[in-house]
Amino acid sequence: MRCLVPFGVDTPKSRLAPVLSAAERHSFATAMLSDVLDAVDATNQTATVVTTAPIVDDRLASRVDIEVDDRELTTAINARVAETTPTLILMADLPLVTPTDIQRLADSTAGITIAPGVGGGTNALVVRDSGFRVDYHGASYLDHRRTAADIGATVRTVDSRRLATDVDEPADLAEVLIHGTGTAHDWLVEAGFELDTTAGRVGVTRGKSGKKDG
Amino acid sequence: MRCLVPFGVDTPKSRLAPVLSAAERHSFATAMLSDVLDAVDATNQTATVVTTAPIVDDRLASRVDIEVDDRELTTAINARVAETTPTLILMADLPLVTPTDIQRLADSTAGITIAPGVGGGTNALVVRDSGFRVDYHGASYLDHRRTAADIGATVRTVDSRRLATDVDEPADLAEVLIHGTGTAHDWLVEAGFELDTTAGRVGVTRGKSGKKDG
Repeated sequence: MRCLVPFGVDTPKSRLAPVLSAAERHSFATAMLSDVLDAVDATNQTATVVTTAPIVDDRLASRVDIEVDDRELTTAINARVAETTPTLILMADLPLVTPTDIQRLADSTAGITIAPGVGGGTNALVVRDSGFRVDYHGASYLDHRRTAADIGATVRTVDSRRLATDVDEPADLAEVLIHGTGTAHDWLVEAGFELDTTAGRVGVTRGKSGKKDG
Repeated sequence: MRCLVPFGVDTPKSRLAPVLSAAERHSFATAMLSDVLDAVDATNQTATVVTTAPIVDDRLASRVDIEVDDRELTTAINARVAETTPTLILMADLPLVTPTDIQRLADSTAGITIAPGVGGGTNALVVRDSGFRVDYHGASYLDHRRTAADIGATVRTVDSRRLATDVDEPADLAEVLIHGTGTAHDWLVEAGFELDTTAGRVGVTRGKSGKKDG
């Protein structure tokens, strides 16, 4: 199955600004993308990164199809969905995703298969019904269900913590430190991040020695 | 399988204080407990609520075994694990849990089966190895894995967004509004909570009309 991974190059992961510089956010976002592509590569699916501008990063350059599309990412994805189904659309900020998760999505036979993210988002979507269009704004999980109902497509929701864990905010970094095993996990460790278990849910702290710009 | 559900009566859900009064927090915590017990009831497992003081609530009084134990809840749970295995220990604040999730836990044959929560917690635990003891403080997911390794028990991690969603903080209420179908979901709707899609992840707002004390 074709797998599209949208990746906004311009100002990635702006909500991580309290703990990461702009250069670090770009580097960390690319590390997470690398984990997602590793998971896809380990299955029989083929990943294409759909991006708003060329990605300059040695970790990616030689290994995957990268399509630069200067339209808004939703428009760029919908143009591709209209051309080819089935299509798996996977967010680029899912550093816990495993090949098992990808295969589970690919195996679903529903018209629309959704793995929701924390906070009402849509982290993975398999579109088998060619009449479907994506819209990632707002509570996209509910919107995608409504769109599926409007076109009479069957819907399956995939229950997965790993697929639900998109990394947008500093607290999310704890999930990567706790459960991650790949590039993004190692990036955070090298940048000096550690778990902070002093209050409520586990968060992160950062040692001063760990500045990373690449 | 015996299923224990620890429930602290004294000051439940204190981190929800910004949006719920003390009486409301007690009522909502009991609504979530009710959802958890409904899910267990729909399987062949038998639920026992282990609580620090008697629960005065019509929604629960007639339907389940309630054991009042004035020890710290971890001590009370460990005393029971030492007596009987296998035991499933399920948190009381998992309003999205389904009978399928309970059965999946019960079917696991590992020495220790863990469903992690967001933020490093342990939301569900199946103990088949009688030498295991629980400790829910801090990053308990990692601690429980270490304890299992120390006693040579096999470990399985269950990947489930529904089991990972414990409700502690106001943002978590959005998950119940989006994905819930039971008592806790209805409680929030009656209390005037609605989704707020104005920024970043979907949150909640509350209408003034919805005060609930019971």
